[in-house]
Amino acid sequence: MYRVCLILLAFATACAIAGFPSVLPTKGEVWPRPQMSLTSSTYMVIRPETFRFTTIGQDCDILKAALKRYIGIMFASYSSVELRSQPWRKDGLFRGYLDNVKVNLIAQCEELPHRNMDEQYEIKIDSPDAPLEGTIISHSVWGILRGLESFSHLLLPSGSAYVLNSTQIMDFPRFSFRGLMLDTARHFLPVSKLKENLDLMAMNKLNVFHWHLVDDQSFPYESAAFPNLSKLGSYSSNHVYSAEDVADVVEYARLRGIRVLPEFDTPGHTKSWGPGQPGLLTKCYTNSTPDGTFGPIDPTNDANYKFLQSFFTEVTHRFPDHYVHLGGDEVSFSCWESNPAITQFMAEHNITGNYSKLEEIYITKLLDIVANLPTKNGYLVWQEVFDNGVEVAKDTVVHVWKSSPLWKQEIDEVTSAGYQTVLSSCWYLNYISYGVDWHKYYECDPQEFNGTAAQQQLVLGGEACMWGEYVDRTNLISRTWPRASVVAEKLWSAAAHTADADAAAPRLEEHRCRLLGRGYDVEPLWPSFCPSDL
Amino acid sequence: MYRVCLILLAFATACAIAGFPSVLPTKGEVWPRPQMSLTSSTYMVIRPETFRFTTIGQDCDILKAALKRYIGIMFASYSSVELRSQPWRKDGLFRGYLDNVKVNLIAQCEELPHRNMDEQYEIKIDSPDAPLEGTIISHSVWGILRGLESFSHLLLPSGSAYVLNSTQIMDFPRFSFRGLMLDTARHFLPVSKLKENLDLMAMNKLNVFHWHLVDDQSFPYESAAFPNLSKLGSYSSNHVYSAEDVADVVEYARLRGIRVLPEFDTPGHTKSWGPGQPGLLTKCYTNSTPDGTFGPIDPTNDANYKFLQSFFTEVTHRFPDHYVHLGGDEVSFSCWESNPAITQFMAEHNITGNYSKLEEIYITKLLDIVANLPTKNGYLVWQEVFDNGVEVAKDTVVHVWKSSPLWKQEIDEVTSAGYQTVLSSCWYLNYISYGVDWHKYYECDPQEFNGTAAQQQLVLGGEACMWGEYVDRTNLISRTWPRASVVAEKLWSAAAHTADADAAAPRLEEHRCRLLGRGYDVEPLWPSFCPSDL
Repeated sequence: MYRVCLILLAFATACAIAGFPSVLPTKGEVWPRPQMSLTSSTYMVIRPETFRFTTIGQDCDILKAALKRYIGIMFASYSSVELRSQPWRKDGLFRGYLDNVKVNLIAQCEELPHRNMDEQYEIKIDSPDAPLEGTIISHSVWGILRGLESFSHLLLPSGSAYVLNSTQIMDFPRFSFRGLMLDTARHFLPVSKLKENLDLMAMNKLNVFHWHLVDDQSFPYESAAFPNLSKLGSYSSNHVYSAEDVADVVEYARLRGIRVLPEFDTPGHTKSWGPGQPGLLTKCYTNSTPDGTFGPIDPTNDANYKFLQSFFTEVTHRFPDHYVHLGGDEVSFSCWESNPAITQFMAEHNITGNYSKLEEIYITKLLDIVANLPTKNGYLVWQEVFDNGVEVAKDTVVHVWKSSPLWKQEIDEVTSAGYQTVLSSCWYLNYISYGVDWHKYYECDPQEFNGTAAQQQLVLGGEACMWGEYVDRTNLISRTWPRASVVAEKLWSAAAHTADADAAAPRLEEHRCRLLGRGYDVEPLWPSFCPSDL
Repeated sequence: MYRVCLILLAFATACAIAGFPSVLPTKGEVWPRPQMSLTSSTYMVIRPETFRFTTIGQDCDILKAALKRYIGIMFASYSSVELRSQPWRKDGLFRGYLDNVKVNLIAQCEELPHRNMDEQYEIKIDSPDAPLEGTIISHSVWGILRGLESFSHLLLPSGSAYVLNSTQIMDFPRFSFRGLMLDTARHFLPVSKLKENLDLMAMNKLNVFHWHLVDDQSFPYESAAFPNLSKLGSYSSNHVYSAEDVADVVEYARLRGIRVLPEFDTPGHTKSWGPGQPGLLTKCYTNSTPDGTFGPIDPTNDANYKFLQSFFTEVTHRFPDHYVHLGGDEVSFSCWESNPAITQFMAEHNITGNYSKLEEIYITKLLDIVANLPTKNGYLVWQEVFDNGVEVAKDTVVHVWKSSPLWKQEIDEVTSAGYQTVLSSCWYLNYISYGVDWHKYYECDPQEFNGTAAQQQLVLGGEACMWGEYVDRTNLISRTWPRASVVAEKLWSAAAHTADADAAAPRLEEHRCRLLGRGYDVEPLWPSFCPSDL
C-alpha cells in the first residue's frame, strides 16, 4: 500500500537502510550554519546547577532578558532521554567544567532592532587564546542575541550535564532582511501563537516579522481613531488585536531582535474596511445602479486621503519600525469601470480608460502621505506598484512575489532602476505538496540573477510567506516549521555553504528535533524520530 | 500577493461576499448526516446543572462510561462565546425544559464491537408521540453510542443553557466498515495521540481503527514471546508500545464502539523485523556473496512459519477483533532473485523464475496459520494477494488501495470472485495539496462500479489512510481532521444525501468548529473563524 522508496527519491539512502530513519541527525551543529566555525574533539562540560552567564561589557534590558531566557532554553526544555542515559565520562578529551560564559557587549545597547542593525558575533569556547574559558562577544546587542542562540545549539545533554566541544565561531548574516510573513485576516491567530512563532524566528535568526494584519476577509486590527473598522470588519469582537496586543507583540519581538513590519494593503484587498468606513470603498454598479457590492478604495474621494493620513499616523506610532508595508497588489479594475463617478473623474483628468493610471494616482498620494508623516517612514510595496511605473521614494523596498522563474527578471529590473528589493517568490510556504518539499526552498538564491555588483547590493534579503487561507492556530506552527528554517539558513549563511540541500539535511534533522524538544510542534521532514517526540 | 478568488474556485460565493468567511456554518446539524431527520422550529432548553440521562433499559459498563463522557462533551468543552452572549428568550416556540433524556437500550449489551454490530438508533426530542420528552433508543449499545453523539450535535449554547429543536432522528450506517488507518512505523505516535484520534473517530461515527503497527522503518510493537523484535527494531526503547499500551488502546476504542484491526504486513515491508529475528529475512547477494542487506521474509525457511505461528498467536490474543490485517503488498523480488538458496528451493519446487508463485507459497501458508489459530481469525489483505491469485478463505476482505480510477475495475473483479472488499484508493489522506482538497473525497463512492446487487453487497465500506512518512504527533490531528470527517459522512450517510459536496460544506464547517471547540486541533477548510478558535 505504500512504497516509501518512490516517495523519498531525494534520499538515495532511504531504501537501502532499514529499521532506521532516512536521515541521521548531526550532534551539536548550529543552524543556520555560521560563516566560520572551528570545532575540536576536546570538550568541556556544563552543569546546569552551577552555570551562569557573566556580563563583562555593556548591559541593558534586552540583554538581561535574553540571558534569563537562554538559561531556560538551554536547560529546561531540550532534554534528550537517550543522550541523558549515556552520561559523559572524563577521558583524555575532557578539558574541564565550563561554569561561566562571559558575555561581552562592546558598544552600548540599541533600543530597537532596525534595518541596518549589526548582528555579527563571536563565540570562543576553550579557544587557543583563552583556554578553558567561554565568551560571547559582539559590538551590538543584536549580535549577542544571535550568539546566545548559536551557543545554545552547541550543548548536548549527557547524563545530568551538557557537553560541548571546544569551538570558535565568527558569524554574521549574509542578508540584513530575513523575514517571515503571517496573515491574520483569512484566519485570526491568537497572540500566543504569534509569540510562539516569534520564538521560532529567533531560534532561526530571522529578524523581520511581516504582519499582514487585514485583508478582504476580516479586519482584526483595532484602531483608536477608527474603532468601527474592527467593530464592523472583524470576524467577531473576540477576533481583534487591541492596541495592547500590538504593543505586546512588538515588545516580544524587540526583545528577540525582531522588527515588526505591519502591512495595510490598499487600494485592493480592502473589502473588510468597508463596513466601518462608509465612503472608503468604490461602489460597484450593475446596469447603472449600485449593486450593493464594493471594490477597491475610491481614489476620487478626497476624504479618503484624510482618513488614510489619520489612520497611518496611528499605525506608525504603534509600530516603531522605520518601514511600513503598503501593499498595492492585485487591484481589480472591474468595479472602477462600472462606476459613473469614477468614469467622470477619469475624463476630467484626461485618463479615460487608463485604470493603471488611476491606481497610480492613488498610490502616489498614499506614498506621499506616509513619507510625510511625523515619523517619516519608509515603505515596502508589492511588486505591482513598481511594475505599474508608480514614482516611489528612493529608499522604497520592492517586494517581489510573483512566481518563479520570472522573479529573476523582476529583480533585475527593480535593482536596475536603483530600488532595494526583498524576494518571496520561491518561499510561499502556504503552498503545500506531498513529500520532501524543502529542497526547492534551499535552492533558491535571491542574488542568482544577471545583475551588476551594485544591483546585487540592493537585494536586502528575502521573506517566507505563510498566507492564511488554510492556516490557523491548529496548524500554523507545524506547517510553517521547519520549512521556514530552510529559508532562514539560506538568508543567513554563506552562499557557498548553502549550495547543497542534501548536505544540509542531517543538520536540519538535528535542528528540527531541537525545536521539537523545546516544545514547538514543528513537523517531521521524512521518516524519523526525535528523542523528544513522545 | 494573493488572489483568494482564484484559489477558492469551488466556492462561487468566496469572491462575492467580503469581510466574511467563505462558508457560513449551519447550527445544530448532525454530522454525518442521519438517514432520516425531522426538525421543528419549536425548541426545548437544557440547563447543565439539572440535566441528566436516565437509563430505562439494559445497562452495562460501556453505557455507563458513555453517559458520563457525553455529559462532559456536551457541557464542558463546546462553549461558544458568541452564542452564549445571546441568551435564549422564552417565546411562542419554547416548549419547555428538557431535564432528562431517557436512554433505552432494548437488548443486552455486547462486550466487543464486531463486524456485524448493529449501530441503528432513534432520537426523539418532543416528538408527537412523546411530547416534551427526550429519548435515545436502540437495540444495541453501539446504536446508543452513535445516538449520544448525534444528540450532542443538536445542542446549541445559549446564555448559560443550551437550546435544541424538537427533533426526530432514525439513523443507521450505510456501510458496516468505516475505517481509519494510522501508521506508527514511519513515525511513532504516542498513545495519547492515538486516543485523541479515537475520540475524533467516535465523534464522526467511524468504527474501525486499522493500526499499521510496524514497517520497514521501525518495529514499535513489543512482543512477549519475541522481545528482541522491538528491542532491536524500534527507533528507541521509548518508541515502543508495550502490552499494556495495546490493551489501553483496545479498551479505549471498545468503549467507543471502535474495532482495532492490527496489521502486521509481510513478507515485504519487514526490514525492521530483521535485527530481532535472525534468519527471518532473506539475505541479499551481490556477486555471489551476501552483501549485508536483507529482503522480504525468507519463504524457504521452515523455522519462519513456526515463528509466525507463535507471533500471531500472541497478536490475536492481544487484539480481540475477529480480523487481522496481514498486508501482503509490494513485495520486491530482486533480493529473492539474488539468493542461491532461494533459487535452489524454487528449482526443487518446479517454480524456477516464478517469484509470484514463491510469494503465493508464503502467503498461502501464512493465511492457513492465521485461520487455524485457536482464535480462528479472519483476515484482510492488500489487493496484491488477490491480484496474484493466491487462494484465500471465503470470508477474506480484500483491501483495495491502488489509485483511481482503476479501483472500480479492481472492486468489480474482487466482488465477482465472491470476496468482500474495503476501499481506500480515493482516501489516502496523507497525500496533501494546496487549497480545498476534500471534494474529491466526498465524491468517491465505493459502490459506484458496474456490478450486480450481490457484488455491491460485498462492499463492506471504506477506510481513510494516513501514512506516516510526514506525520507525527505534531501534525497528525490537524492533517487527518476534518478531512477524515468527509470520508466518515460518505461511509455513514445515504448515497442520495452525499451526492453534493457544496451542499455539505456549511454542515462540515459547523462540525469543524464543533470539534475545535471540543479541544481538538482540526484544521480549517477555507477562510473562516470559529467562536472557539482563539
